[in-house]
Amino acid sequence: MPAGAAERFALSASWVIPVEPAAAVLKDHSIVVERDRILEVLPSTELKQRYPDIDHQDMPGHALLPGLINMHAHSAMALMRGLADDLQLSVWLNDHIWPAEQRWMGPEYVHDGTQLAILEYLRGGITLFNDSYFFPDVTAAVASQSGMRACIGLPLINFPTAWAQHTDEYIGRGLEVHQSFKGDQLISTAFAPHAPYTVDDDSFLRIRKLAEEMDVPIHLHLLETAGEVTDSEREHGLAPLARMQKLNLLDTRLLAVHMTALSDADIDTVARHGVNVVHCPESNLKLASGICPVAKLLAAGVNVSVGTDSAASNNDLDLLGEVRTAALLAKGFSGDPEAVPASTALAMITINAARALGREEQLGSLLPGKQADICAVDLSAPETQPIHNVISHLIYATSRQQVRHVWVAGKQLLKDREPLTLNVDQIVSNARRWQQRVGTDYAAQA
Amino acid sequence: MPAGAAERFALSASWVIPVEPAAAVLKDHSIVVERDRILEVLPSTELKQRYPDIDHQDMPGHALLPGLINMHAHSAMALMRGLADDLQLSVWLNDHIWPAEQRWMGPEYVHDGTQLAILEYLRGGITLFNDSYFFPDVTAAVASQSGMRACIGLPLINFPTAWAQHTDEYIGRGLEVHQSFKGDQLISTAFAPHAPYTVDDDSFLRIRKLAEEMDVPIHLHLLETAGEVTDSEREHGLAPLARMQKLNLLDTRLLAVHMTALSDADIDTVARHGVNVVHCPESNLKLASGICPVAKLLAAGVNVSVGTDSAASNNDLDLLGEVRTAALLAKGFSGDPEAVPASTALAMITINAARALGREEQLGSLLPGKQADICAVDLSAPETQPIHNVISHLIYATSRQQVRHVWVAGKQLLKDREPLTLNVDQIVSNARRWQQRVGTDYAAQA
Repeated sequence: MPAGAAERFALSASWVIPVEPAAAVLKDHSIVVERDRILEVLPSTELKQRYPDIDHQDMPGHALLPGLINMHAHSAMALMRGLADDLQLSVWLNDHIWPAEQRWMGPEYVHDGTQLAILEYLRGGITLFNDSYFFPDVTAAVASQSGMRACIGLPLINFPTAWAQHTDEYIGRGLEVHQSFKGDQLISTAFAPHAPYTVDDDSFLRIRKLAEEMDVPIHLHLLETAGEVTDSEREHGLAPLARMQKLNLLDTRLLAVHMTALSDADIDTVARHGVNVVHCPESNLKLASGICPVAKLLAAGVNVSVGTDSAASNNDLDLLGEVRTAALLAKGFSGDPEAVPASTALAMITINAARALGREEQLGSLLPGKQADICAVDLSAPETQPIHNVISHLIYATSRQQVRHVWVAGKQLLKDREPLTLNVDQIVSNARRWQQRVGTDYAAQA
Repeated sequence: MPAGAAERFALSASWVIPVEPAAAVLKDHSIVVERDRILEVLPSTELKQRYPDIDHQDMPGHALLPGLINMHAHSAMALMRGLADDLQLSVWLNDHIWPAEQRWMGPEYVHDGTQLAILEYLRGGITLFNDSYFFPDVTAAVASQSGMRACIGLPLINFPTAWAQHTDEYIGRGLEVHQSFKGDQLISTAFAPHAPYTVDDDSFLRIRKLAEEMDVPIHLHLLETAGEVTDSEREHGLAPLARMQKLNLLDTRLLAVHMTALSDADIDTVARHGVNVVHCPESNLKLASGICPVAKLLAAGVNVSVGTDSAASNNDLDLLGEVRTAALLAKGFSGDPEAVPASTALAMITINAARALGREEQLGSLLPGKQADICAVDLSAPETQPIHNVISHLIYATSRQQVRHVWVAGKQLLKDREPLTLNVDQIVSNARRWQQRVGTDYAAQA
């Protein structure tokens, strides 16, 4: 019986990186999985005595880590990868991204784009994505069918789209999605009001009340650029953070994405309220939005996790690469080479993310009782030799192409880099069809 | 006969990116190679008529680019990858890197480390590296035996090492290396005085004179940190750039590496003298050295290229990843998302580098008459779908694992990611032996 199909099975590797306790490296250890959970982590020498008949996959040269958690995604936008780059934000949005969305965004687009993104996520060790996009019913269905874990944002924005026309409809359709995936072990939901500059006070208040009742997070773009501060002060008489505070939105339920334009006083406010910060360094750099002061936030005790943002502004969905950029940028931006050491970086894409979603009891580390969301990374490539330090290599030297196997809830979804629940040829062929439809064929230009 | 073995052969691909003219994308084109040179670039539809019997390799879904040029390397230090991270520069150097070098650096170390680096270079599309390290005779021999192109730095530093004891010996041994590789088509040399803070005026003057006579570049660490400015002012009464100007070193022969602490007046000086700047963004970020003002330098007309620096401070030797970081960082640091667009980034790792080495007539683009240094990148992976813009994808979405084939001087060195002139098992096994010797076994720590 192949590993992953048994009620109980074991994964053995040269290194197990449990993430809790921080910086631990367990050499020659095994993880025993029972159904969807981790039963035990133990030295491989003890495995055969303790579990003599267990179905067992040995992975020499590999490291096992918790599945990675991508905390800010617009998955379907994978179809717009490289559609427009190297442009001012307003030109990029107004002349490229929004017209393309206006024209094409719908259930089929979201289906095909999300499948492409999930394929990329799995091949990069990502086992959960926190999404914010239209047609969340389609995103949730695609994730669930793929065996992928997702936190599905229920969108709200103060203008009409193909998904909904006004606040009532956004909320109503969102609640329907929440309801219809309530029994799905892999799918959770969050409210996803777009941003302070596109959502009115009344809508925020309704969402806050519902999020409390339903006990779900609120996933919000906040302070992506410094320009938002002056705009908000003009329009509302308050900076965005002060406005969110007035609306009682600053608490542990909030997933505040970007957070580039933060004063020291703002950092104190964020820390005091237990707001979760989601850092998207590559998108922020590429659009020249600003830089999130990650070293200061961590020093203030803020829970910081990482997201790729969409492929339209990144342009890959590579969380391992993203946190590498985060670790490097934090050092360069703070002037302190000790900022965001490798083990902290690894926590940012695993346990910190689980904590932000209120799910640190189930996800984000390889502790007994937690969900068996695991990825196996092959460190035997020349690019990661010699191996003086495994965690350093995972953050600073390993590329996501070294992810070989992925399990979600004890079920293997990627095996030797091939997805077991997705049809690669179909997904790539769909993407090519959308390329013809959506894009000016830049590739054909000489 | 396999492609690469014939006197003449052709490479056909979905896209040829010649780099000259800038931003050009030639769809469905072929490159005809004759011996070590590019004979012609033409539409693939014309290939069969013009060259009916030519040995021909078709690569649908691939892009052909000029081989990438890594402009700042200490290749042998690949053996120290991940030995020490997340530390203050002084601690990193004094307590980790220098003691390890003091203990182990010698011909065998340089041989094994350089082989490991060259394997990584080839698997990442790099066809030329500009090196600065001790035992350059060994580095040159390893490169030449691998079929790899290299510009070998002849080191000089004002303290004794296993390579040489004093200026006379550094220069003498350097000249011997230059002399003994004079007939080697793949090997060129440069003087590599370490840095203004480790080399005295007299040595710089001797090097300048010799470099002019021999017509070779001078490869120098310059302004890696702001601290160097104050130190130099105290010791020499001049900032490093002013001191180099006084010593007549500021000209097109100079490859000035790092260049983080530059005022606007400095940028003007650099531009006026035609100094070549080599940008190492990831090393600079990781060590929190400072940030090179690439957007301003390019705007001033300075020739900017890119280097990985060593694996001890990066920790990969991934030039495609490095220039992606350079393109993103330039936007974020300048606040201008139009800074360093994708085609400029591609020029920085190809033609700009060739120009810095004074070899733009032979290298750095796919023009007839130039050396056939070519890499083939497979864009058919899901991670680079859909393909709205090939050059955007190469810079922002492609990882080096998508490099499938590499040719240097018309000879294939990498085929389906396997090196044809290097023994992977031997190289990895050597690296593991050095891991035991050099490193505290961090990997064994729980």
